[in-house]
Amino acid sequence: MQQLIDEILKDCRRFTEDGKVADYIPELAKANKSEIGICVTTGEKRYFAGDWNKPFTIQSIAKTIFLMLAVEDNGIDFIKAHVGVEATGKPFNAIDYAEPLLLRENINPMVNIGAIAVCSLVKAENYQQRFLRLLDFTKRITGNPDLKVDENVYYSEKKTGDKNRALAYLLKNSGMIEGRVEDLLDVYFAMCSVQATCADLANMALLLANHGMDIATGQQIISEKNATFMNAVLITSGMYDGSGEFATTVGLPAKSGVGGGIMANRPGHMGIGIYSPGLDKKGNSVAGIKMLEMLSQKLRLSIF
Amino acid sequence: MQQLIDEILKDCRRFTEDGKVADYIPELAKANKSEIGICVTTGEKRYFAGDWNKPFTIQSIAKTIFLMLAVEDNGIDFIKAHVGVEATGKPFNAIDYAEPLLLRENINPMVNIGAIAVCSLVKAENYQQRFLRLLDFTKRITGNPDLKVDENVYYSEKKTGDKNRALAYLLKNSGMIEGRVEDLLDVYFAMCSVQATCADLANMALLLANHGMDIATGQQIISEKNATFMNAVLITSGMYDGSGEFATTVGLPAKSGVGGGIMANRPGHMGIGIYSPGLDKKGNSVAGIKMLEMLSQKLRLSIF
Amino acid sequence: MQQLIDEILKDCRRFTEDGKVADYIPELAKANKSEIGICVTTGEKRYFAGDWNKPFTIQSIAKTIFLMLAVEDNGIDFIKAHVGVEATGKPFNAIDYAEPLLLRENINPMVNIGAIAVCSLVKAENYQQRFLRLLDFTKRITGNPDLKVDENVYYSEKKTGDKNRALAYLLKNSGMIEGRVEDLLDVYFAMCSVQATCADLANMALLLANHGMDIATGQQIISEKNATFMNAVLITSGMYDGSGEFATTVGLPAKSGVGGGIMANRPGHMGIGIYSPGLDKKGNSVAGIKMLEMLSQKLRLSIF
Amino acid sequence: MQQLIDEILKDCRRFTEDGKVADYIPELAKANKSEIGICVTTGEKRYFAGDWNKPFTIQSIAKTIFLMLAVEDNGIDFIKAHVGVEATGKPFNAIDYAEPLLLRENINPMVNIGAIAVCSLVKAENYQQRFLRLLDFTKRITGNPDLKVDENVYYSEKKTGDKNRALAYLLKNSGMIEGRVEDLLDVYFAMCSVQATCADLANMALLLANHGMDIATGQQIISEKNATFMNAVLITSGMYDGSGEFATTVGLPAKSGVGGGIMANRPGHMGIGIYSPGLDKKGNSVAGIKMLEMLSQKLRLSIF
Repeated sequence: MQQLIDEILKDCRRFTEDGKVADYIPELAKANKSEIGICVTTGEKRYFAGDWNKPFTIQSIAKTIFLMLAVEDNGIDFIKAHVGVEATGKPFNAIDYAEPLLLRENINPMVNIGAIAVCSLVKAENYQQRFLRLLDFTKRITGNPDLKVDENVYYSEKKTGDKNRALAYLLKNSGMIEGRVEDLLDVYFAMCSVQATCADLANMALLLANHGMDIATGQQIISEKNATFMNAVLITSGMYDGSGEFATTVGLPAKSGVGGGIMANRPGHMGIGIYSPGLDKKGNSVAGIKMLEMLSQKLRLSIF
Repeated sequence: MQQLIDEILKDCRRFTEDGKVADYIPELAKANKSEIGICVTTGEKRYFAGDWNKPFTIQSIAKTIFLMLAVEDNGIDFIKAHVGVEATGKPFNAIDYAEPLLLRENINPMVNIGAIAVCSLVKAENYQQRFLRLLDFTKRITGNPDLKVDENVYYSEKKTGDKNRALAYLLKNSGMIEGRVEDLLDVYFAMCSVQATCADLANMALLLANHGMDIATGQQIISEKNATFMNAVLITSGMYDGSGEFATTVGLPAKSGVGGGIMANRPGHMGIGIYSPGLDKKGNSVAGIKMLEMLSQKLRLSIF
Repeated sequence: MQQLIDEILKDCRRFTEDGKVADYIPELAKANKSEIGICVTTGEKRYFAGDWNKPFTIQSIAKTIFLMLAVEDNGIDFIKAHVGVEATGKPFNAIDYAEPLLLRENINPMVNIGAIAVCSLVKAENYQQRFLRLLDFTKRITGNPDLKVDENVYYSEKKTGDKNRALAYLLKNSGMIEGRVEDLLDVYFAMCSVQATCADLANMALLLANHGMDIATGQQIISEKNATFMNAVLITSGMYDGSGEFATTVGLPAKSGVGGGIMANRPGHMGIGIYSPGLDKKGNSVAGIKMLEMLSQKLRLSIF
Repeated sequence: MQQLIDEILKDCRRFTEDGKVADYIPELAKANKSEIGICVTTGEKRYFAGDWNKPFTIQSIAKTIFLMLAVEDNGIDFIKAHVGVEATGKPFNAIDYAEPLLLRENINPMVNIGAIAVCSLVKAENYQQRFLRLLDFTKRITGNPDLKVDENVYYSEKKTGDKNRALAYLLKNSGMIEGRVEDLLDVYFAMCSVQATCADLANMALLLANHGMDIATGQQIISEKNATFMNAVLITSGMYDGSGEFATTVGLPAKSGVGGGIMANRPGHMGIGIYSPGLDKKGNSVAGIKMLEMLSQKLRLSIF
């Protein structure tokens, strides 16, 4: 297995050249696109190769964390009353946003507007507490007590995050979120700026693979029902507009981020953490997807 | 003529029942929908009937003022480099807004997002100065030095204006506006909350009818070219999504506001101010449009 | 005046290079883009220059003819119950077409789908009769009894007209048209393939300028009300997605076709026929628009 | 197991009242919405209850058959070069269809326009042969040599299928399909009108569950790779606009039809055929989904 991982990374290194690092915020543009790492964990054993221990910001992978904690806090039905789970983005324009119901049907927890809404559903007395709960939860599911926010990326996100501000105000206008928009966005930006490694992502993925149970302690971190729910959402919309394609070529629940990370899991078997910051046009790691394709084919991992 | 105006108002009073006062902000919901007024001025003579002297907030009619002053400040070509003049709103979604050019082609100075962009093009060293310039200009073109902002409406707009905030942040994200969004919106909300009467609107309309010249003083307030430009924009998009219909039934350049006002002009002949706060589904005054239809038919005012 | 026309044509000849002849059907691609012609008629006098007497297919200018005759046959209210008159094309997708009402609000007699619907409203016992009525009517309003269809263009349109077939079947699906789709399209394609000259277009335009009256015979060909309606529709949507821009730079009701023709009129004054087959991206004649801009500026023709 | 199936059917019978039978074609409106049936097969054993042996038209389940055979004929890459696999339907309008590439990215084999395109990729010398190949293939994968077309439904579909005609002409216009549109639609309508039972659907589903191998004969009907591809496509878009919701509540690859059928499979384990003609707003069987939810929960079938 370790040998397979090594070979896959070696084979896929050439694809690091094909992507383009995210440049919508200056800090992300500094990434080195030749980096590539992978970590696979079954709970009992862990395999890794390349830059598996290099930290990067999780970006949209935070959407998974918002949803996990919000579902644990409120239950699936409550969440579904606020956001939809269809990948089918219907045409919309700003005026439609006046109607909350229409909005609900057309947002998804794995796209920005839906993730902002879900973030606001994480229970907390104030925004600081919300962030601390989310960070603590992330430490717990990664098994890494040292996780922290990349302050430069956070400030860069906050400074240039006007599209997210627009989306948040659309939500506010529809009564979908309450309180100060900037406070909520602070939590959102900070969580997207959390630094993690392939090993951290693999642990997080393993939790979903293990139906919510921490295999080390035997503790049920999130309910089995909620873990299943998470994976169902990931398969249909975890890889941006490439989710359908990814389901056909890899066949695993996964979430990507523009930092170059991918967190994937094979339910019942393993968690996988991937890193390579060169992105395709849809925002997914080029070499990362190639590694997952090879891994899935060699080990027949597809859930289909 | 005065007799005709009286008859038209009398005939159309029954339509005041068919509309619905704007209720998206609490202050506007307080309007009395049985009110109806009209004022027609040729410069030499003025005719009026009903609640012609009752002040109401101009709301979207302010979009005309933003555009007039921004065009005077910068020229038509500069304005066209920032906003489009087509009524054909193409489908868009938030992601598209990342591309300024696409945004420019799809916004129009007579819809909120375009009007906010145009407001930012009015020259000023700061936002306070921008508001004062706009208010002064409005006093000048209405010939009413006593115009003022309805503070209750202004605060109500500011408090509930999250959709406009969203639109402004989309503009900011595309580099279409600069500076603090909230400052710009303050100018926007305050100008929408300026109180005017049918007489004030009729004077403003007369200026456009007279190709930009103040008939009383002989002074050219805006250039002839710019006045013509304004009327062309008004005919294609001044009456929200009812502009095409209005062109066929009334045939005059006009701008409506959800406060119940309509400012219309017959180029070369007259300015018309209308007020009746009961609105149709598109946001236009029901009885107001009826009065304009009758007036246009009786006097053969249509420019077509 | 004749001198002005000559100068304008001379000045604008250079713009013939900037356009691109329509190539979506092979026959249109054969046009010579260096050709340019203009004809202006006031009824009493006629001025012309360049290729004013060169026949070309009228293409979308036929939409004006469908609408004129359908409105004469059925009245404005009947037509408005079938098609909208707003230029604001809302986002739509095929599924929405199941709902006729939604469809009606979003189609316009000056775009293909709306024009096909309007064509079906021209009264006739069968499709052959419909075509003959339309052709006769066109001969009458152009004053040219020799008008005929360019058979090559017609067959080319028919052969490659699958998008129009799709639109027609959407209309059929919504109950907006009856009978055999191919029969209706035959009328549509044949009328688009009628050959006319600048002089023919100028005569047709003069009829609209003269409020529907044939100035030579004093006969009211279409009612004054309907002529006004036509011009209102033309100003908001006669120049494809460039209608708003054209209103600001030329300010006249006009209709263009991808054959390179433009029919424009100054209500109360004159009819104008234009020809130059080099098109801009929106499908309008580049040199044609330039000639109209110059003519409008020199003679202060803008209706605004 | 048989007892569980009986209980589930009994429990879910009440939901048959909540749906509405399809009425867009007269023949489908004749369905009896109190009917409900289920069949589960593992290859070794078969369980069934209710109207499991009642034939109904498969409708959109035929999309699965088109795709299976087209992929076998041409390979996955060829198919992906013609249709996309994303559920994210972007806003589009007719004009966009001029660009084949854009079209490809936005159609999906599980929606009508994509299924028509895929149907045309099934290899055949003529349309009759295409239909016979598809019917033969369907007999083979259902193990039912007596399958036949419901002629009444077929004629009803053909008569009222103008929206599908429109979609086919859009495809033709983009060069996505060749030959006569009506011939292709005949195949499409006929296959949608094939009558099958829950038992037939369960067998077809079992083939996908068994990675393409006919468990009775040991014969590989479709390749393992293609079977996996099919299931991946089904999970993201097999249940119309309810695919994401279905993934979270049932978690199985499935395809529904407006005849009331659902074909679902648990990869590696079982095939399921469902029938109940009362539909929800998205076109899926109400009682059918309820039965699948209960079955999935009781037997922990979700693949996530």
